[in-house]
Amino acid sequence: VRPSSSTSESSPLGLFDGVLARGGVREAVGDIAWLQAMLDVEAALARAEARAGILTDEDAEAIAGACRAGDYDIAAIGRDAAASGNPVIPLVRALSDAVGGSAAGHVHHGATSQDIIDTAAMLVAKRALVPLLEDLAAASDASATLVEAHRHTLMAGRTLLQQALPTTFGLKAAGWMLGLDGTREGLTGLRRDGLYVQLGGAAGTLASLGADGIVVLGHLAEELDLREPPIAWHTDRKSIAELAGALGSAAGAVAKPARDVVLLAQTEVGEVHEGTPGSGGSSTLPQKQNPIAAVSAAACAQQAPALVASLMGSMAHEHERAAGAWHAEWRPFTELLRTVGSAASWLRECLGNLQVDASRMRANVDLMGGLLLAERVTTTLTPILGRLVTHDLVERAAQEASAGGRPFAQVLIGAPEIAAHLGPQDVAQLLDPARYLGSTDALVERALQAHRDLPGASVT
Amino acid sequence: VRPSSSTSESSPLGLFDGVLARGGVREAVGDIAWLQAMLDVEAALARAEARAGILTDEDAEAIAGACRAGDYDIAAIGRDAAASGNPVIPLVRALSDAVGGSAAGHVHHGATSQDIIDTAAMLVAKRALVPLLEDLAAASDASATLVEAHRHTLMAGRTLLQQALPTTFGLKAAGWMLGLDGTREGLTGLRRDGLYVQLGGAAGTLASLGADGIVVLGHLAEELDLREPPIAWHTDRKSIAELAGALGSAAGAVAKPARDVVLLAQTEVGEVHEGTPGSGGSSTLPQKQNPIAAVSAAACAQQAPALVASLMGSMAHEHERAAGAWHAEWRPFTELLRTVGSAASWLRECLGNLQVDASRMRANVDLMGGLLLAERVTTTLTPILGRLVTHDLVERAAQEASAGGRPFAQVLIGAPEIAAHLGPQDVAQLLDPARYLGSTDALVERALQAHRDLPGASVT
Amino acid sequence: VRPSSSTSESSPLGLFDGVLARGGVREAVGDIAWLQAMLDVEAALARAEARAGILTDEDAEAIAGACRAGDYDIAAIGRDAAASGNPVIPLVRALSDAVGGSAAGHVHHGATSQDIIDTAAMLVAKRALVPLLEDLAAASDASATLVEAHRHTLMAGRTLLQQALPTTFGLKAAGWMLGLDGTREGLTGLRRDGLYVQLGGAAGTLASLGADGIVVLGHLAEELDLREPPIAWHTDRKSIAELAGALGSAAGAVAKPARDVVLLAQTEVGEVHEGTPGSGGSSTLPQKQNPIAAVSAAACAQQAPALVASLMGSMAHEHERAAGAWHAEWRPFTELLRTVGSAASWLRECLGNLQVDASRMRANVDLMGGLLLAERVTTTLTPILGRLVTHDLVERAAQEASAGGRPFAQVLIGAPEIAAHLGPQDVAQLLDPARYLGSTDALVERALQAHRDLPGASVT
Amino acid sequence: VRPSSSTSESSPLGLFDGVLARGGVREAVGDIAWLQAMLDVEAALARAEARAGILTDEDAEAIAGACRAGDYDIAAIGRDAAASGNPVIPLVRALSDAVGGSAAGHVHHGATSQDIIDTAAMLVAKRALVPLLEDLAAASDASATLVEAHRHTLMAGRTLLQQALPTTFGLKAAGWMLGLDGTREGLTGLRRDGLYVQLGGAAGTLASLGADGIVVLGHLAEELDLREPPIAWHTDRKSIAELAGALGSAAGAVAKPARDVVLLAQTEVGEVHEGTPGSGGSSTLPQKQNPIAAVSAAACAQQAPALVASLMGSMAHEHERAAGAWHAEWRPFTELLRTVGSAASWLRECLGNLQVDASRMRANVDLMGGLLLAERVTTTLTPILGRLVTHDLVERAAQEASAGGRPFAQVLIGAPEIAAHLGPQDVAQLLDPARYLGSTDALVERALQAHRDLPGASVT
Repeated sequence: VRPSSSTSESSPLGLFDGVLARGGVREAVGDIAWLQAMLDVEAALARAEARAGILTDEDAEAIAGACRAGDYDIAAIGRDAAASGNPVIPLVRALSDAVGGSAAGHVHHGATSQDIIDTAAMLVAKRALVPLLEDLAAASDASATLVEAHRHTLMAGRTLLQQALPTTFGLKAAGWMLGLDGTREGLTGLRRDGLYVQLGGAAGTLASLGADGIVVLGHLAEELDLREPPIAWHTDRKSIAELAGALGSAAGAVAKPARDVVLLAQTEVGEVHEGTPGSGGSSTLPQKQNPIAAVSAAACAQQAPALVASLMGSMAHEHERAAGAWHAEWRPFTELLRTVGSAASWLRECLGNLQVDASRMRANVDLMGGLLLAERVTTTLTPILGRLVTHDLVERAAQEASAGGRPFAQVLIGAPEIAAHLGPQDVAQLLDPARYLGSTDALVERALQAHRDLPGASVT
Repeated sequence: VRPSSSTSESSPLGLFDGVLARGGVREAVGDIAWLQAMLDVEAALARAEARAGILTDEDAEAIAGACRAGDYDIAAIGRDAAASGNPVIPLVRALSDAVGGSAAGHVHHGATSQDIIDTAAMLVAKRALVPLLEDLAAASDASATLVEAHRHTLMAGRTLLQQALPTTFGLKAAGWMLGLDGTREGLTGLRRDGLYVQLGGAAGTLASLGADGIVVLGHLAEELDLREPPIAWHTDRKSIAELAGALGSAAGAVAKPARDVVLLAQTEVGEVHEGTPGSGGSSTLPQKQNPIAAVSAAACAQQAPALVASLMGSMAHEHERAAGAWHAEWRPFTELLRTVGSAASWLRECLGNLQVDASRMRANVDLMGGLLLAERVTTTLTPILGRLVTHDLVERAAQEASAGGRPFAQVLIGAPEIAAHLGPQDVAQLLDPARYLGSTDALVERALQAHRDLPGASVT
Repeated sequence: VRPSSSTSESSPLGLFDGVLARGGVREAVGDIAWLQAMLDVEAALARAEARAGILTDEDAEAIAGACRAGDYDIAAIGRDAAASGNPVIPLVRALSDAVGGSAAGHVHHGATSQDIIDTAAMLVAKRALVPLLEDLAAASDASATLVEAHRHTLMAGRTLLQQALPTTFGLKAAGWMLGLDGTREGLTGLRRDGLYVQLGGAAGTLASLGADGIVVLGHLAEELDLREPPIAWHTDRKSIAELAGALGSAAGAVAKPARDVVLLAQTEVGEVHEGTPGSGGSSTLPQKQNPIAAVSAAACAQQAPALVASLMGSMAHEHERAAGAWHAEWRPFTELLRTVGSAASWLRECLGNLQVDASRMRANVDLMGGLLLAERVTTTLTPILGRLVTHDLVERAAQEASAGGRPFAQVLIGAPEIAAHLGPQDVAQLLDPARYLGSTDALVERALQAHRDLPGASVT
Repeated sequence: VRPSSSTSESSPLGLFDGVLARGGVREAVGDIAWLQAMLDVEAALARAEARAGILTDEDAEAIAGACRAGDYDIAAIGRDAAASGNPVIPLVRALSDAVGGSAAGHVHHGATSQDIIDTAAMLVAKRALVPLLEDLAAASDASATLVEAHRHTLMAGRTLLQQALPTTFGLKAAGWMLGLDGTREGLTGLRRDGLYVQLGGAAGTLASLGADGIVVLGHLAEELDLREPPIAWHTDRKSIAELAGALGSAAGAVAKPARDVVLLAQTEVGEVHEGTPGSGGSSTLPQKQNPIAAVSAAACAQQAPALVASLMGSMAHEHERAAGAWHAEWRPFTELLRTVGSAASWLRECLGNLQVDASRMRANVDLMGGLLLAERVTTTLTPILGRLVTHDLVERAAQEASAGGRPFAQVLIGAPEIAAHLGPQDVAQLLDPARYLGSTDALVERALQAHRDLPGASVT
């Protein structure tokens, strides 16, 4: 297997790319990368056919030698694509011209445009997943660092954005970590086992390759280090859909911690802030510390689900080549990789630089003066006083405490029915958030172990 | 009202743009157009503030004079947008540098980044709708030409893709025409009444403009020929959503005729083909006449609904500026205009060059040997023989005729129950498709009248 | 015009309906309502045909008299729909049986199943929009009440969920109000002008009605108080798409205040809470006051965009009846009305009972000890000290103040460059949030005026 | 592991269910099935806690014994869900009442509503996937039968709906088969390894279970035969998203053959028709044979992508319980299972009864009089005459033949440049479609082998 060609060309950033196209994925899905991938397929096809004895090695290498994206005029190919309905036809013409001589006649032999674009799409995905998975892994590792550092950092657990029970920042970050790890597993598996070479010729029969079709198909898969399908998948878009599904799921795994960070960074909560130097400041509002990375990660992730639907809604390819559904995949496929990759890159930056204010977390836990532990009081008293009596007692005490008169502990002790069973010290212990964490520590340990067991991010 | 600045710059085509970014909309939503729109807002803001006496006319003109997109480095702005979370901050810095002197201190005065981007989005939409509406109008006019030319051209009406009853190509094309006209009305109305200027300052209060805020807002709307909203719409995304909805509806109106053309152009149907010179041929398959324009129109239109959902799913902007939902609009907004505009441009080409084979249409009507008129036989006999008897008779006759023995007419005449009431000539007339068109002609006339009543496409 | 039939039947609630199917819209889009709408179309068709002289008034009334949903077995119709592909065919059979006699032969005359379902869909929409628009209007009115009550209630304006500048709760609620009003306008207009009767017969030609087709079409529109289209819209889904777009936009207008309420009700923010008696409590967590209505409104609204995309992605109806795209509309159409209606109903409850804590709002404004006014200090000093010097001075002061040493005012006064120009009283005034509201009051007035100018919710 | 409870209750069909809710999945995702699943979780929780010594076996069995869906009033639970925001709270109240005695105090112990609904969702999925996977497997097996029966049945390969090259119906059906098999693999794997029990208590810490939390979690997973997650997944929605992705992919795998069948069944193509007795007829149009099953399969499949997007767009769950995003999953989750299951059931019926007209396929191959083999003539002549000369010759001959004068073979032989190299018999052989199938047979064999290698559908 020869290494895939690469290119030193690079695309200039677009106006919104600083926010919406971040990280290695930007180049990896750009026009130059796509063009190079198409040329890599043409080169590999020539070599595969040379191995099958269809052309000479010299001709194959002459073709492969001309497969450098930098030598072609993308704008011209883009323009000429209009007449034929796809960019491969002008590209093959330009490639044949560049090759010249006897080898020119062998360019693209036996292939149809869809063979080139579909296989190139698999290469683009394979390459774009490298930075994407690295960024996801780094974001997960950053979460793991937070888990270990804040394993015992108390904070309020919040449901429907209301304080509910104590938890630890370690457990929260463990949720982020496992969410990211789960999605890494899926994408890593797809990258290894779910990307197939496409070769079928005009109707999927490999007719113009005569008896050699299957042999060439096998060689082509080897040349490109992609999987060999039983038959051409030109109208079976499972590979596209599964990748889309996994990327959509990854977007969700990124969106969750991004959302949490934005909420934790609120002025009134103040439990974290982003620590990236030189970022998030506002020249006119110097007091602000905008969580730019989390906001941008959320913005990028949010665009993914619709792109997934776009790709999945394009799967009913008619007969042996779709009349539109295939062309409709090109842009959402690219955009989906780009936006999820950008989201992962932003989250990596966000979590890698996250500043945690443990004392503010603790202060927020104490904000309700013990009410956060009301469930525990109920659980403790129920076996003694019965469910209904307990419920009424605790509810009344909670209301009195929230109304602002006295701390919850005092109200509880002041109730004779309770004082009969619990002394001030009992109540103080009951209301100690650090003593009402259930299995938190064991769960955190399990989460860290699962993270450690996951293979690393090295995917090339 | 001064004319909006324009730019002579142009963006090179991307690899897939020949198919996916066609027509005037490509430039109109490109980075250069976006940058120019942002600069137009800054220029108009300076002039509006000059009218309010906040700065001198000289300073305003100094600012406006520096608002030429071609003078700025898009890639650098894109790169620096990462640190601040949007491209306006580096743009304002660059613009201030370019202006220099005392005027520089007045650049962007009182505005926030979102004011610039939101208002620029409205300008981009307003400008992109010009070619988009022209293409829709031209496609509709091309349909009207087909309606008039084929008002009496018989063809098979098909339901669930089965031949059902006779119709005319004129009526079919009238459906295309009215579908396009309906969507033009919606978009034209939105372009005129639904695009609002945005100005609120950092929190929507126009605080840093002191008492002048509302005055400046009014002047700004006039300068840009956009509507003035009662209050800033920074977190009320109705304008975006309504435009998205209308564009999604337009995509559907384009997709319908595109789908029909692809189906009518099938080898086995052969009733139309695209006549664009030099397009649709296949070098290896010379017999093919691919309906490239219809296929591409369908492919572009198909991408719209997910983009609509993306924009509508981003409407819950938090408090006075969203933490992600705003940034998540930028790309889908641009892509939606681009893909619907491209679809319209392709359909214009498709319908403007459509070749109709009336004799093949007639041959297809006759394909079932009169069975297409079975409903009419039933309708005629039911009052005479009763519903059940008629139903059984006609169904049996239809089955015998489809089984291939004899023509439907002969089978009918051969049934004594029928022959008792209908002679051969009666049956021949009953089975004449031209005599079973109901209100077709009147409907076509109504449709043409509605088309004529619609104001033309001149939207600038 | 005879009043539409109505039904006293009601459907039992489903398991999740308490949350997901709330308000009048639940019944209005249920199976009974759908069945009644189909029967209303059959009744109106018979009457329209009687007016055209096709059947006698007696027969028409015999048909109309049998068009009561309660007399039919929905489950049996649902079951038999499988064989024919839609529920109209078994319904027409059952209706004919119920009518009996000579009139039975006139049931459904000249119509195709799609005529009935499409027209029934318009009736369902027309009826479901009544409670939906009432709920939107009530939510908007509740916002208006909040605007007036809290016109001068200071609160922190927040961008990216960071405190940015002072604003008022009145201005925030005005944004909610206008967002709701905007969407009401669109839906009201569509309800009045955008709902069309459908009648085309099997292929859109009205063939089996002979010369009477257009006359019957006109009468049918009158009978049902729906608009008359120039030609059948069986394959032009604009009406569906425009309604979908407007409902998607409405969902966004509901989602925005719902999101804000959830955020404002956070334990750490505490500026509002829902006051619905008996709702939002938690038996195990008595301290919680879950904003159930806002959460449920958000949950219902969030489901809308995908349903919009589903409907807009089904617009390419093939030829004279789609092979799937039509059937694919039925459920999303119903679900979209239901989920947006439920969202509106929840928001009405949320805003109608919203408890506002103005003192907590003020306390939050003061949370940063004056830093919220940093922009104003900058704006004031810039003309005196120049942009760069001012920026550095204020930024340093802001950092020192946030670091927690001293209040921002003290830090400012302590800086000799500032003290040279501003005395303690100047600084106190500069940092008074009530004096930095720009055009807030005027904007609120404009918003209230726009709300008052909007016609009321009476849509029947 | 005790068997899951089951219910003999059944839900009546809705008005559109005959088309949109078909097969075993209808009951499996209905309200009764959901309620039973929730009760199964409560029963299993009691037993798991009994194993952990928290309550007695007797109390656990008392609870489990009351967990029969048929004993509860769904409408009442649905109604009361409004006040608390979900149906578990009224259900737990009703269950406690039903249990009575000391056991009542142990109902739902340590769980939160989300624990019950999330785990129930996994059970619903696990059960609904049984009929869904059976239907997919049967549809795939039906495809395999078609592959074997039509391995050598010639038909036209069509690209962009234009005849392109010969292929076989066997190869086409092999594509359907592998598409379905691919999606079965994914769903089977997820059903086995991707469905997790949820138990976290109010904030994910299992606080109210003290030290027993993890033990109970493990037992609960065993009781329900679901996987045990490292920590609660209440805010990590990977399981939901991955299932959604796999279902979306399955919908596409169903949509592809459905679309092909509809196209092949067109009156003008006539290569297949659906053979389901008593289905697809039209009382008014007796000549029609509507492909109801394929149309319905397409209609059901088409609704899936938006539902996938809805679920993936709901993944950013805030903190320890989402404020809306969780509730927003309930309906799309159910609808997605239902619509994909219905699509699979329809496709099974469609393919299991498909009637193939091999002679019509052959007639369509011959429709173009040999032009379908133009590529082969080019391929043969190019090495002899060179690319350009050959291209011009063949293109001209193709144009002359399509223009209708003479058969392609005659035109070719009539060209002296060709006649110099190819005799009439050579040309006849070149134009024989059965000799230009490339690797078709070997590909079909590989496909069948892959199908045989796939484990069967037995998933219980």
